[in-house]
Amino acid sequence: MYRSHNCGELRLTDIHKEVTLAGWVQKSRDKGFMIWVDLRDRYGITQLIFDEERTDATVMQLAKSLGREFVIQAKGIILERESKNPNIPTGAIELLVKELVVLNAALLPPFTIEDETDGGEDIRMKYRYLDIRRTPVRDNLLFRHKVTQEVRNYLSALDFCEIETPYLIKSTPEGARDFVVPSRMNPGQFYALPQSPQTFKQLLMVGGMDKYFQIVKCFRDEDLRADRQPEFTQIDCEMSFIEQEDILNVFEGLTRHLLKETHQIEVDKFPRMTFDEAMRTYGNDKPDIRFGMEFGELNPVAQHKDFGVFNNAELVVGIAVPGAASYTRKQIDELIDWVKRPQVGALGMVYCKYEVDGSFKSSVDKFYDQEDLAKWAEITGANPGDLILILSGPADKTRSQLSALRMELGNRLGLRKPNEFAPLWVVDFPLLEWDEETQRFHAMHHPFTSPKPEDMHLLDTDPSKVRANAYDLVLNGNEIGGGSIRIHDKEIQALMFKHLGFTETEAQEQFGFLMNAFQYGAPPHGGLAFGLDRLTAILGGQETIRDFIAFPKNNSGRDVMIDAPAAIDKTQLDELSLALHVK
Amino acid sequence: MYRSHNCGELRLTDIHKEVTLAGWVQKSRDKGFMIWVDLRDRYGITQLIFDEERTDATVMQLAKSLGREFVIQAKGIILERESKNPNIPTGAIELLVKELVVLNAALLPPFTIEDETDGGEDIRMKYRYLDIRRTPVRDNLLFRHKVTQEVRNYLSALDFCEIETPYLIKSTPEGARDFVVPSRMNPGQFYALPQSPQTFKQLLMVGGMDKYFQIVKCFRDEDLRADRQPEFTQIDCEMSFIEQEDILNVFEGLTRHLLKETHQIEVDKFPRMTFDEAMRTYGNDKPDIRFGMEFGELNPVAQHKDFGVFNNAELVVGIAVPGAASYTRKQIDELIDWVKRPQVGALGMVYCKYEVDGSFKSSVDKFYDQEDLAKWAEITGANPGDLILILSGPADKTRSQLSALRMELGNRLGLRKPNEFAPLWVVDFPLLEWDEETQRFHAMHHPFTSPKPEDMHLLDTDPSKVRANAYDLVLNGNEIGGGSIRIHDKEIQALMFKHLGFTETEAQEQFGFLMNAFQYGAPPHGGLAFGLDRLTAILGGQETIRDFIAFPKNNSGRDVMIDAPAAIDKTQLDELSLALHVK
Repeated sequence: MYRSHNCGELRLTDIHKEVTLAGWVQKSRDKGFMIWVDLRDRYGITQLIFDEERTDATVMQLAKSLGREFVIQAKGIILERESKNPNIPTGAIELLVKELVVLNAALLPPFTIEDETDGGEDIRMKYRYLDIRRTPVRDNLLFRHKVTQEVRNYLSALDFCEIETPYLIKSTPEGARDFVVPSRMNPGQFYALPQSPQTFKQLLMVGGMDKYFQIVKCFRDEDLRADRQPEFTQIDCEMSFIEQEDILNVFEGLTRHLLKETHQIEVDKFPRMTFDEAMRTYGNDKPDIRFGMEFGELNPVAQHKDFGVFNNAELVVGIAVPGAASYTRKQIDELIDWVKRPQVGALGMVYCKYEVDGSFKSSVDKFYDQEDLAKWAEITGANPGDLILILSGPADKTRSQLSALRMELGNRLGLRKPNEFAPLWVVDFPLLEWDEETQRFHAMHHPFTSPKPEDMHLLDTDPSKVRANAYDLVLNGNEIGGGSIRIHDKEIQALMFKHLGFTETEAQEQFGFLMNAFQYGAPPHGGLAFGLDRLTAILGGQETIRDFIAFPKNNSGRDVMIDAPAAIDKTQLDELSLALHVK
Repeated sequence: MYRSHNCGELRLTDIHKEVTLAGWVQKSRDKGFMIWVDLRDRYGITQLIFDEERTDATVMQLAKSLGREFVIQAKGIILERESKNPNIPTGAIELLVKELVVLNAALLPPFTIEDETDGGEDIRMKYRYLDIRRTPVRDNLLFRHKVTQEVRNYLSALDFCEIETPYLIKSTPEGARDFVVPSRMNPGQFYALPQSPQTFKQLLMVGGMDKYFQIVKCFRDEDLRADRQPEFTQIDCEMSFIEQEDILNVFEGLTRHLLKETHQIEVDKFPRMTFDEAMRTYGNDKPDIRFGMEFGELNPVAQHKDFGVFNNAELVVGIAVPGAASYTRKQIDELIDWVKRPQVGALGMVYCKYEVDGSFKSSVDKFYDQEDLAKWAEITGANPGDLILILSGPADKTRSQLSALRMELGNRLGLRKPNEFAPLWVVDFPLLEWDEETQRFHAMHHPFTSPKPEDMHLLDTDPSKVRANAYDLVLNGNEIGGGSIRIHDKEIQALMFKHLGFTETEAQEQFGFLMNAFQYGAPPHGGLAFGLDRLTAILGGQETIRDFIAFPKNNSGRDVMIDAPAAIDKTQLDELSLALHVK
């Protein structure tokens, strides 16, 4: 061992002890006759002191040569510091160095290893091993470890068994694109990396494993949006002989446990909301309910006046922005411009100030009198001093636009507090959604999701109306998990594939093994998966998942540190029976 | 919830309770007026009883229709059994069924779901989800979960942090073959799946993470030998500011903890042996020390007589087989044939019986008198009643042959007891080994292993003599883990690549990121990886890793259950800028 203690543990009670520390030079101050070095390791920082009168001259000389990030070992005696640093736990002591060894010299790092660094994202990713030395990144990784340990201990105590499912599986065209892996031993054939262990966990249920979980990497070859990773981690779970209620209870318990362990926060029973209600109230299936601004639908009170824009709209819907009646014309115009940006896409926005004196002033005063506007206030829940903002148009689109505005205002008004946690179950998702591109229905969750028995009869007549036993856990406006009760009957599964446009042959080829398995006694089962990267980020009070991944990839799916992906040898391609075919 | 209790928990204390159970029909006996059903789930078996006098006729009727592996739900009252079954924990009670629901019917399974099944390996793998219903397989998976939980808790308590390293990395020609993953977004480029997180864990040390571990899947595209899997799981660890001794202590502690938690066995400090000693004493770098039969080198006493075979041999080496002096000529001939099989490859074998009366009788009595043979006995540690078996020839080859014989005899004589555990550290491995095929030195462990400082000077003059700070943990004749102190200096790492036949450009291209990282202050570090599949199997008293993997692949790397790998669509190939090139 190169050290007797770490750099974070020495206190006043250790004074006069002889200790050996090892770590990195955070910084040094050289006053000639005296040198101070901040020595850093994973556990903290301890001040080293070299003093002409008490430190050997050669050690003194060596100390003068130390640069930032040199790796050193220092042996000496713990002293009480004259001027203490109350900001760090070791701030009361310092190490008077007797012996010094440079374990490794260091080039000057390309960015400062400080909490607030001068390094931009790109350079920090290229030198991620240096970025990890910074306290915020290091703490995020330690936090992630804590979260996974808590998840494992919680679920294990409930008799869940973690079971590893294979990574080299079979490609299926349904869903997102697979990453594939050519097989050398089976020329012309490919494995695929799992997008999720979905079918395997269902087979484990058929196998009687009853309560399964796994913290597992999954892979999706998608065109990456900001903050998506081609490989990501799931907390994947499945249970047998349960109903939706049982799953919600277990994972509500888990989430509550995590909030308690990471933030000492006790949360009440999570509220629940149907998908329809979430869309109507927040324009969004993952509403942030840390703040209000619920949607008020104004059709009955805003239509059939002389304002054509509203009269022709499928939906007229508004929100009350708290305390914003005092906004200037300029501020309001800026908001109108904001919703008209192509990313949001509104054509315009109507506003109505509910003045503190109780009067109303709107951009459509020509068409609506005070009494009309009072009804708007009532429906949107506006109070005197609030600003009502109204969008209109096709229902889905308008809701989505108003939801974007609501979230933006939530951010601007500081209503999305990082240390406040508002979990929410959204339930009763539609089973199917219409895909314009392929002109057919797709599974909203996945093709193994069970329709609600009472909606089965709608499958043929009105497929979009069929609700599923599917649920999402939403935390602070982010979907952190989702799942469903699965189909466990071969006939219903076959019917589902048919409705999703599979021929019988296709269904058999791709999922025959699962439907076969159902014939040998599949129990009723269901489950859920949490996105660990996002869950950890949100529990950590942040939203960028990259900050909670040790070695993330950039938006082109590249690891810029190791420079991957990269070309491979022709011999390697030959062995795999492959040829490049780059256009 | 479909059940109030599971099938393993009800006892005499539950009598008269109304309960609901759900599970699979293990078997049923129909006496006409009375039907018994063994209901099975993950937790156990509970007997259901249907009785003409007390059970409703329709329920009775339904019960008669139940087949093996039907999934049912049964509600009723717990009664005390008249004839108790002492072999199962629920054997004192039974459930008198009032209500019965068939949750799913089942086809007759293709093999019996019993501890001893009539299904061969192939059919059990194809229907692995049914195989998992069998108690031994299920218990193996539960056991594996317990082992991983214990590993995680033990290491976490020591401040190790589990950090996920990426699965999509870069291919390197060194070592075994990589599985590669074509990148759609970077046409013509490939990721590789990690053979181990080696370089990433070293970068984490450069990043100051100090104590890292990860239970992680690794991938090797090798021609599969029996009981090898293309994807396998490692317990991967790395520490900074440590020496070899520290690592041995931590992982000896972990192994001791596992033996205690899984078998209530307390093991003393693990013995240690150098690689040289292991090879000389057992002909093997992973000796099973549960039994003796240590090698005795007989050159000084067996050579320079008139027996040319021994005189011309580099090595004459023997073992004493306990109690085998009574073997018949036929038994001994069978052993001679065994070592002459091509898999072992000996040309012949000399034997010497140490009779219980103290006399010796050997196949080479012509050349050696009783006094000579007494020396053989002394050197091989033979006692009266033992049989000394002697091989001769080139040293390495002969040791390896005698090692094979020793293990075979250990098995035959029942000396390799599955519930006895004999761990052993083998240390001081050679740094390099000569590869006949490529006519150059290869890294015995991997190219990041540190040579022993005191042997550095031999690198140029006698590379095969350089020892490494490398160590293996051996348990019952199996290597369950291995590791080394790493190089943390850029110059030494560059020197090592040179000795391994890398040009400077190749070294830079493939491992430049690591050598660059070393320049920014790499701490001294080292680590170790355990093979989880094997560790679990051995702790479980078995040797076949497949039995401890939920969904293993066969010897051609195929998953016969889902039928992977498989062909993929032409569109998929096009998107990946690839063409098949199957000869």
